[in-house]
Amino acid sequence: MVLHAPDMALRILIVGGGAAGASAAARARKWSQDAEIHMFEAGSMITHAPCGIPYYVGGIVGDPSMLKTYTPSEFSKGRNVNVHVGSRVTRVDLRSRELEVEEAGSTARYGWDRLILATGASPLIPRVEGVGLKGVFTVRLPDGARELRDGLSAAGTVAVIGGGYIGLEMADAARSLGKRVLLFEAMQRVLPTTVDQDVAEVVHEELRANGVELHLSEPLLRLEGRGSVERVITEKGSYPVDAVVLAVGVRPDSALAESVGLRIGETGAVYVNEYMETSEPDVYAAGDLAETTHMVTGKRTWVPLAPPANKMGQVAGANSVSPRSLKFPGVVGTAVTKVFSYYVGRTGLSDEQARGEGIDFESKLIKTRSAAEYYAKYETIYVKLTVERKGGRIIGGQIVSRDKIAAGYLDLMAELVGRGATLDDVFFSDLSYSPATAPVWHPVITAARVLSHGRL
Amino acid sequence: MVLHAPDMALRILIVGGGAAGASAAARARKWSQDAEIHMFEAGSMITHAPCGIPYYVGGIVGDPSMLKTYTPSEFSKGRNVNVHVGSRVTRVDLRSRELEVEEAGSTARYGWDRLILATGASPLIPRVEGVGLKGVFTVRLPDGARELRDGLSAAGTVAVIGGGYIGLEMADAARSLGKRVLLFEAMQRVLPTTVDQDVAEVVHEELRANGVELHLSEPLLRLEGRGSVERVITEKGSYPVDAVVLAVGVRPDSALAESVGLRIGETGAVYVNEYMETSEPDVYAAGDLAETTHMVTGKRTWVPLAPPANKMGQVAGANSVSPRSLKFPGVVGTAVTKVFSYYVGRTGLSDEQARGEGIDFESKLIKTRSAAEYYAKYETIYVKLTVERKGGRIIGGQIVSRDKIAAGYLDLMAELVGRGATLDDVFFSDLSYSPATAPVWHPVITAARVLSHGRL
Repeated sequence: MVLHAPDMALRILIVGGGAAGASAAARARKWSQDAEIHMFEAGSMITHAPCGIPYYVGGIVGDPSMLKTYTPSEFSKGRNVNVHVGSRVTRVDLRSRELEVEEAGSTARYGWDRLILATGASPLIPRVEGVGLKGVFTVRLPDGARELRDGLSAAGTVAVIGGGYIGLEMADAARSLGKRVLLFEAMQRVLPTTVDQDVAEVVHEELRANGVELHLSEPLLRLEGRGSVERVITEKGSYPVDAVVLAVGVRPDSALAESVGLRIGETGAVYVNEYMETSEPDVYAAGDLAETTHMVTGKRTWVPLAPPANKMGQVAGANSVSPRSLKFPGVVGTAVTKVFSYYVGRTGLSDEQARGEGIDFESKLIKTRSAAEYYAKYETIYVKLTVERKGGRIIGGQIVSRDKIAAGYLDLMAELVGRGATLDDVFFSDLSYSPATAPVWHPVITAARVLSHGRL
Repeated sequence: MVLHAPDMALRILIVGGGAAGASAAARARKWSQDAEIHMFEAGSMITHAPCGIPYYVGGIVGDPSMLKTYTPSEFSKGRNVNVHVGSRVTRVDLRSRELEVEEAGSTARYGWDRLILATGASPLIPRVEGVGLKGVFTVRLPDGARELRDGLSAAGTVAVIGGGYIGLEMADAARSLGKRVLLFEAMQRVLPTTVDQDVAEVVHEELRANGVELHLSEPLLRLEGRGSVERVITEKGSYPVDAVVLAVGVRPDSALAESVGLRIGETGAVYVNEYMETSEPDVYAAGDLAETTHMVTGKRTWVPLAPPANKMGQVAGANSVSPRSLKFPGVVGTAVTKVFSYYVGRTGLSDEQARGEGIDFESKLIKTRSAAEYYAKYETIYVKLTVERKGGRIIGGQIVSRDKIAAGYLDLMAELVGRGATLDDVFFSDLSYSPATAPVWHPVITAARVLSHGRL
């Protein structure tokens, strides 16, 4: 057992300085003046925001160094946390409760009373030939963003592999750089695991209208080139390209957790309960590394996004100081992005997911507008609600519009889904109206009315 | 007793063809194929949208005839409802269950099985000298909108009396017409009964930045002029003007209801229960005429706005066919408007209202932004949450921003207030995030965190 500081303050070690790790550190400090807190980050930045990388590439963010909330020294001073950057945790010893850390050219050992793992997730690399060629990129950390931007800037034609959120954002960014852009998606629509076909089709139109060459139902076979990537090969063709962005998904960075036999959940991420406790006493996991509960299905789910990561980190940090004091209730799978001029988002279950769960549901996509009928300035809003046929509980919502208010309505739907609201609840929600902001029948209420079959 | 149609179909008479009356008619028809439905409207338009008048004056709506959803004949054909326009109901006879109606130059009598009163509200006229002068206007019905616009167009200087929603919208409209605009408000802030001082001050700045001469704490003493209005006289001065818009509030048009002794509630509007039943059997009231329940205080309240009017009408219409089949649960007092480039809205109780209710509350106005910290394109968002000190139940929300997403967040807050959510509920709501749409800590969650005193 490593000795504690003389006052025997609680020693909390946190592996990972991203959203979850830094939130855990900040919360642990807030809840305890005395704890000795160490945060280990393999890269050079903490509180980094990988979600911002496409916007740096596209030119909306000036420099990758902006893609963080705090510098290590700001965080360290402001919160009295020992921030170790460039520190790789190479071994976890559960018996001695020690971490082995490679930092500053040597190996150090740190003992813990509480360990919080927040090692995040990293891009999946498709198991095909050519992914190691020069000019093939993933979107991972701000550390690598400049190289990504330089690589795409030098290209004439860019292929994006994968039509998920990051793929769409990178296609948009590459168009902002003036590149010819080919987007390859193995499934028959973009955002295939999160939105339904009817919603995706609005996005398809927008992508095409902005010059993205959309290749749906076209799985990648391999990348070809001599040294640098030169061609994307799919089942349907061979496409000359100068750069490739791989955006086919992410996987939890669970090597460290697995190395000591922490329970891995059915989702493939690290199992935690609502207190963010892993299968080992005093070892917590949080953020993209950890799975959680889906509040609609009650089943385990894995949603590697920044907002749940921050909250999980916060819960782990609080509980590391004061065990079982805060519960993370789970997620409903809310996500949003901007694709060219469209905002597209979803919460709860899509129709496809509801079908997969064997739920007896119905749904409707309605088309309405973002202002009163007579108000000249408006955008079209598409809203989809998915409800249980019996009882009318809202189990999912999808939205797409050029009006940013769509993202606000998405939050409303997330809240409705999260609390298990019914169509009647939605109808009688006292939602806002003014001619400049909404139709007099609110878009989400209109969707509920249509699904009420004349009752409302 | 007046004879029914030979098949003895239920006869439903509706007085008023605005939001509530038309919603009642439409719903009654939806729930009954057989009912004989008559709707009486004193003006020439039905399903009219008085909320759109400022936008017609300001030029965003091309013609006042657009300020409606249906023409009388569209509504009549589409819904098989007898629409009587230009029909003034002059007498209600509760004993014989008959209405006396002046229409087409003669007087007719109609018997009812169910009567729905939806006579709406009309502008309050201040009891001061000069309000009858030429050039003095109110904002009432689309029928009078052209006269209003012409009157303001001909003026050089326009005074708006009253800084409520309509006053602000009219000040904006008059500036769009290029007029010098003086706005007089008796209280020390605009929107005095709905938002707090801190929120109002953001609006004050915007008004002044757009050239509105703001006169706060300056009650109107009288209007002066020979034939036409020439001067606004307040306690502080005398102001030469060419036109005046009176926008000091509205009152329920309850003359007919009062003439037959229907119970008037403590708010001054017609008393109804949750089924929209008045104190008389088979007589319903709905819309701006009727009061309802405030879902935070449980007390009676009067909120003359289109969305509750539509819903009340729908509930009255449903219950007129199938008694007590639908309940109107009440409102939380959600309202929003656009003032120049700002969206400003509120729901639940303001601090001032909470204080008036004797609630032990606390509140915080936070200033955040409408995109990630590093994202170059954003607007400032001000969010205020008001919560019960014990238990942290959200009892009110206010928001102001140039980003229209504020109106969507207002809906989210309305829903949170309506369901009695606590700070913890808000924190763990799975709200959306992308760098282009929100900070990673959602504005409403940030407000909740600040109020949690370090817990969240």
